[in-house]
Order: sequence, then structure tokens, then C-alpha cells
Amino acid sequence: MDQYRVLEIKESVFESNDREAEKLRAELKREKTFLLNLMSSPGSGKTTTLMATIAALKDELRIGVMEADIDSDVDAATISTSGAKVIQLHTGGMCHLDAGMTRQGLEGLGTENVDLAILENIGNLVCPAEFDTGAVKNAMILSVPEGDDKPLKYPLMFSICDVLLVNKIDVAPYFNFDLDLCIERVHKLNPDMKVFPISALKREGLEPWTDWLREQVKAWQA
Amino acid sequence: MDQYRVLEIKESVFESNDREAEKLRAELKREKTFLLNLMSSPGSGKTTTLMATIAALKDELRIGVMEADIDSDVDAATISTSGAKVIQLHTGGMCHLDAGMTRQGLEGLGTENVDLAILENIGNLVCPAEFDTGAVKNAMILSVPEGDDKPLKYPLMFSICDVLLVNKIDVAPYFNFDLDLCIERVHKLNPDMKVFPISALKREGLEPWTDWLREQVKAWQA
Repeated sequence: MDQYRVLEIKESVFESNDREAEKLRAELKREKTFLLNLMSSPGSGKTTTLMATIAALKDELRIGVMEADIDSDVDAATISTSGAKVIQLHTGGMCHLDAGMTRQGLEGLGTENVDLAILENIGNLVCPAEFDTGAVKNAMILSVPEGDDKPLKYPLMFSICDVLLVNKIDVAPYFNFDLDLCIERVHKLNPDMKVFPISALKREGLEPWTDWLREQVKAWQA
Repeated sequence: MDQYRVLEIKESVFESNDREAEKLRAELKREKTFLLNLMSSPGSGKTTTLMATIAALKDELRIGVMEADIDSDVDAATISTSGAKVIQLHTGGMCHLDAGMTRQGLEGLGTENVDLAILENIGNLVCPAEFDTGAVKNAMILSVPEGDDKPLKYPLMFSICDVLLVNKIDVAPYFNFDLDLCIERVHKLNPDMKVFPISALKREGLEPWTDWLREQVKAWQA
């Protein structure tokens, strides 16, 4: 029994993505729906983090998730077991989502009665950083096995996000990952970045992150 | 003392990338230089794999490496300690390299007296798959922590590569990674794909890969 549908989204035709993003954000403000844009490399644990986040917040917030992928619907199938509303978006090869594509996703999801909408963006540290999706806040995940040098190599992504989740912190002993050095590199690019070390799989360290997210949603709706 | 230089490469102006790529390949054939295009997600271990590969082959082949990144030169600094010739390429934000950009890199590196040139492409499973760089063979790395579902989500990348290195196989016990299932998914997309499980960091399982690579270079030069 599918608990989700798959939407093929189309390339946007708008002249100015920034203008479209501002317009979308203004509409979301009126509807009291908070949109979070979640970005990372492939395999850093976005879906597992969402599962843990939904479990922590679902009794307080009405949550809807847009799973964007080039192909497959494994992530929507996973999220559909969480109790959250979910839609799978297929980008037809596109490496990122812009505001027009995000709008198509939100319309497919349906935002009436959604307090917190989450866009799980395409797994990519480069292109998604260049497009304002209309989200209220941008979050990213860096997983320990990827290495602490990633802020040096993908500076734009680390610059435009409001929050960084350092995931798979439980396997840090098996990898050469220096959390303090990583945070130092992040704050050189983006002094205001919130950093939360977590293990989404083991559901450890999540409270500071979910507290922050709950607070953001409440402030947006106030 | 820097053992490498940093080259800012420019966007290509050619009408047909496929034609440019064929032209570049023909030139490399005449020069008896084999070009390998190495792709993966950020943090899957491209540079560590190159260090291990260079160590295994440097006494038999003259090797040159192009490290492509949006920013930083940490990878070129690492490779410069291997004894191989190396140049750092900065793409100015571009998420992939095409044949024209690769040509700029090869000119900067200097291919006279290079048997094996390796392009370490931008860390990205999406965009680099869409552009023929002029390489003779395409290789990719998938690391165990990224998960065995990646062929489902990034099918183009797995379709266009000749060889897949499954890296960080030593940490498989700590992750939920099914190698057989992964290979089954890969071969459904690309029945001819060579798959080599390795641990680049521990330098384990590398011989089948370096044997394959040596054979490819020799065949190209014959």
C-alpha cells in the first residue's frame, strides 16, 4: 500500500529565482508553514535524520516531507512509515531544486495543516547551494566519514546554511575526524552557524537540534 | 615549498562537448597518455585512493594528477607528497568538468612523459556524469558509509562508469551495507561494470584495481 505519491517536477521558467523564492516565502508566512531546506552529500544520512526528527516532533507539529531525488522512491517509502505526510519528487536529472520546483513540490504535498514542511534536497554539496528554494531556513548535514576538510572544499554550502548537523558522530573513533577543527573551519566561513553533533541512527544528541527547529517554527508562526 | 601550482580554469565555449571530448581523446591516443576520470561523492576517499594507487604503480608508470575542486588546495598538497606530478584546478564554482576544462587542466599539468593522467573530478554524483571529459575510462568510488542504495538514486553515474571502487570496506561491520545487493543493483544498470571492494586507507584489496588500471594503460599505449 503506497502511502505517498511520486511527482515529476518540471524545470522552472521564471526569470528571477530570487524573486520567486521571496514570493514563496511570503506565501508560506501567511499560511504559517515553515519550510526547511535540508542539504548534504549523498549518503550522509538525511533520511535517517528526518526519521529521528519526525519521531521527536510529530506530537507537537504537523509535518510534511518532500523527498527530492533524480530517481527511485526509496526515501519516500521510508518516510511514509514515520506517520508524516510525504511526497516523492523526481527532478528528471536536475541536480538541485529552485523556488519554482519547490513550489510544485509544496503544491503536490499540500501545505494546508502543515506546520513544518521539509525539503530533502538532492544529495549534492555544490549546486543546491546556489538556489534559494524559498525555505525559511537552510540546514545541512556533514557526516563524519566524509571528513573534516569539507568546509574548505565546498565553502558556499557551508556559508549559506543556518545550521550544520554533524552526523554519524558515533563512528568518529573509526575515522580521522577532528570535530573542533571542523567547527573552526565552519565558523571562519559562517560565524553564526549553529553546529549540532548527532547520531541519527542511534538517535543520540538530537535534542538541541529538535529544540532549535521547534523554536524556529514557533517564531515563524507567531 | 609548494610542489604544485593552482590553475583557475575557465568555462568552456565549445558548441559540442561530445565533439571536443572525442578530439581530446584522439590527441591523448597519439601522445600515448591514458586519461582516467575519477568521480564520487564528497568524502568517499578519492584522494586516499589515488595515494594508494600511485604508490602501487609509480615504479611502472609515469603518473600525473589533476585535482579539481571549487576551492582549497588540500588535495594537491596531499598528492604532491606521493611523488606524482600534480596540479590543482579551481573551477570557480562549477560543479563538474567538461572536455574543454579538462584540456586546460592537461595543458597546465603537461602530459609529455605522462603515461597515466588522472582527473580527480568535483565531489558530486550528479553533474559530472553528464559531461564527457575526454577520458579513456571513467571510474567512480562509492564508500560504504554512503549506503548500498546509491545506484538507485544516481543511476546515470553508475551507468556511465567502467569501474566501481567500493571504498572503506573495512568499516562495513559498523554500517548497514550489503555488498552483494549493491553489486546486483549496479549490474542491473550496467552489466559490464567492474567492481572492486577496497580499503584505500588500510591499503587492502587494491591489487585487482591496480592490475586492471595497468592493463588499460598498456592497451591504450600499444
